[in-house]
Amino acid sequence: MTDDLEVATAADAAPRHLAPDDVGLVAPRDYVHREPFTFKSGQVIPGFTLRYETYGQLNTTRDNAILICHALSGDHHCAGWHSPADKKPGWWNNLIGPGKAVDTRRFFVVCANVLGGCQGSTGPSSLNPETGRAYGTTFPFVTIRDMVRAQKLLLDHLGVDELHGVIGGSMGGMTAMLMAIEFPKFTRRVLAMATTGREGAQAIAFNEVGRQAIMQDPAWNRGDYPRDAGPRTGLAIARMMAHITYVSDASMQRKFGRKKKENANADAYTFEQQFEVEGYLRHQGQSFINRFDANTYLYITRALDQFDLAHAYGSLEQAFAPLEGDTLIVGFTSDWLFPPEQNRALALALLRAGKRASYAELSTDLGHDSFLLESEELYSLVRAFLERGQHYDSDYSI
Amino acid sequence: MTDDLEVATAADAAPRHLAPDDVGLVAPRDYVHREPFTFKSGQVIPGFTLRYETYGQLNTTRDNAILICHALSGDHHCAGWHSPADKKPGWWNNLIGPGKAVDTRRFFVVCANVLGGCQGSTGPSSLNPETGRAYGTTFPFVTIRDMVRAQKLLLDHLGVDELHGVIGGSMGGMTAMLMAIEFPKFTRRVLAMATTGREGAQAIAFNEVGRQAIMQDPAWNRGDYPRDAGPRTGLAIARMMAHITYVSDASMQRKFGRKKKENANADAYTFEQQFEVEGYLRHQGQSFINRFDANTYLYITRALDQFDLAHAYGSLEQAFAPLEGDTLIVGFTSDWLFPPEQNRALALALLRAGKRASYAELSTDLGHDSFLLESEELYSLVRAFLERGQHYDSDYSI
Repeated sequence: MTDDLEVATAADAAPRHLAPDDVGLVAPRDYVHREPFTFKSGQVIPGFTLRYETYGQLNTTRDNAILICHALSGDHHCAGWHSPADKKPGWWNNLIGPGKAVDTRRFFVVCANVLGGCQGSTGPSSLNPETGRAYGTTFPFVTIRDMVRAQKLLLDHLGVDELHGVIGGSMGGMTAMLMAIEFPKFTRRVLAMATTGREGAQAIAFNEVGRQAIMQDPAWNRGDYPRDAGPRTGLAIARMMAHITYVSDASMQRKFGRKKKENANADAYTFEQQFEVEGYLRHQGQSFINRFDANTYLYITRALDQFDLAHAYGSLEQAFAPLEGDTLIVGFTSDWLFPPEQNRALALALLRAGKRASYAELSTDLGHDSFLLESEELYSLVRAFLERGQHYDSDYSI
Repeated sequence: MTDDLEVATAADAAPRHLAPDDVGLVAPRDYVHREPFTFKSGQVIPGFTLRYETYGQLNTTRDNAILICHALSGDHHCAGWHSPADKKPGWWNNLIGPGKAVDTRRFFVVCANVLGGCQGSTGPSSLNPETGRAYGTTFPFVTIRDMVRAQKLLLDHLGVDELHGVIGGSMGGMTAMLMAIEFPKFTRRVLAMATTGREGAQAIAFNEVGRQAIMQDPAWNRGDYPRDAGPRTGLAIARMMAHITYVSDASMQRKFGRKKKENANADAYTFEQQFEVEGYLRHQGQSFINRFDANTYLYITRALDQFDLAHAYGSLEQAFAPLEGDTLIVGFTSDWLFPPEQNRALALALLRAGKRASYAELSTDLGHDSFLLESEELYSLVRAFLERGQHYDSDYSI
């Protein structure tokens, strides 16, 4: 997920948090689970915290909740503003709010930082209560399934009886699908975008280069580093590279092309920044290291690599067999990280498994991050999908 | 350029250097230019060495030479074997040899490591005769034009009166085109593959991440490091990432997919190598640092980024205006580093400039490195192009 998407609204002069279709000022909360939690690996932690936000109200029948699932570098802050001085709202603010596609007048929206994360939820940078030191790489290996189970505990705690829907892009799409697989009666609708049932070799390869950049940085120290130090150089390199995979050749070309930074002519012969795209990438790297933990980056990219629905359940069709709700898969033409074919394959497997499934492919040139774009087409897809009656029975075409 | 291409012949049991279509055992030589050389930047070195190889014999009219131009990480050893024990022949051995597409019975083939390189030619890792220490980043900035001018001095030294042709892929394609632009009467045929008239933002972005990986490695020390040390970690990271851009999603998927390394199940929860593609990339990084200099990597990627024919000459058409020879541009469908459109654009500009130009687009799934593939289609294109009479006048279609 990018820091300064073309959808960013930061430049607007008016106080956006007062706009009528904005959820306004919001504050995160912590759910503290005080029971032991066993990971898929068999490892156990004595308890965990999930940091989350909610917008809107849970209805009396406790069935109007929508779970939003974030991507690798995302967090629980998906809509609204933490303070009027914030430069940017939550990362999916364009989708979520009063009257927006995910309408907070009607739905109770929940978004939590994943287990293993570093934005307030328990992860490698959290203190191990048994040692008083950060877990580091002694933290149990996290899988998408572990993330889903932790989020289910949060939803139980919040009194949610069933999810009206679960929505996510990229890793959030994996989480959303697995929520429906693991808790089929609980999950009425799944909307997964820019995602995959399993990464191919190229996606694993990019993740591996990022991990090596971090682990080869001497400051990584096998995962044992002070909270505000650590392999910042390696993490920045990992992020710069990953960022290229989140956008597209066309969008970078349109935004930067070969534009030189101002006054670049004076030092045409230099390894310092010369092209605007270089400064942009460096900025991506630098801003990331101030908000993200390197060990979490290792853990979550590994969780992404290990996610393999077909392998875990025998086949994609068998994975989807338990599903009871409606499904919508959305792919984006310019996404070369989790390309449209991989999204289409999910929808086809859903149909083969006899599920209510739709597939939409949106033409964009913003690459993988297209799921975050401002698009009326996407909004109406989301809106219509959430309106769809549970037992709505038109043709599900692909 | 990859280390272990699918075209590699290392596994063959028979002594390949004895095969009748092989140039056999070859030895590099050094051309020592003892006059000062002024770079495009205005900087001057007192002299330089180019390491080169030749195959075949220069004819009495001195007009049967073919210059082969290498890519970023390539070198002068493009055909034959340095020793019977070599695991691999020169990098374009499949194209060059007695009876092959570039037929050494007929042509005098020359290939030199570029100025700024690290495989025997003068570059940042060479000793500065004025200080007795390696140049490091005091070496003048190198441009593709500087590389071309140095190669022309070598060809003059070898007594070549005119080039029957110049052939290169990737950066070698840039060098080849510029040889024809700068020395149009000298250059009778240009064959450029998998190349571009200028990189777009994405290619610059990938180069920048590689440079940052090197320059942020403390061992880089602003370019001042001992010969066998230096930023090996950063260079390996740069290479691992770049390697992904040389191949393709499809070829990595076919070769590795999600295959796990042997015995990987035992440690499914680890950051150590788990997938075969991870080991493959690590090997790419490790073998590269044993043969390549990090400063050269910085210099040459910068030369690639700065190369911009349209900017340097006013337009692509004006750049090509002086050309007198035949041209053939070859693009590869799966090349996403210098995609076919960029190759096609070169051919179109040549045609608009009124030149004899052909364009061929080969369907492959090997990505950018496709120009190195074993392909009868490519061989016949090359062969036919080199046979073509200088004033051959059929239709040049695109």
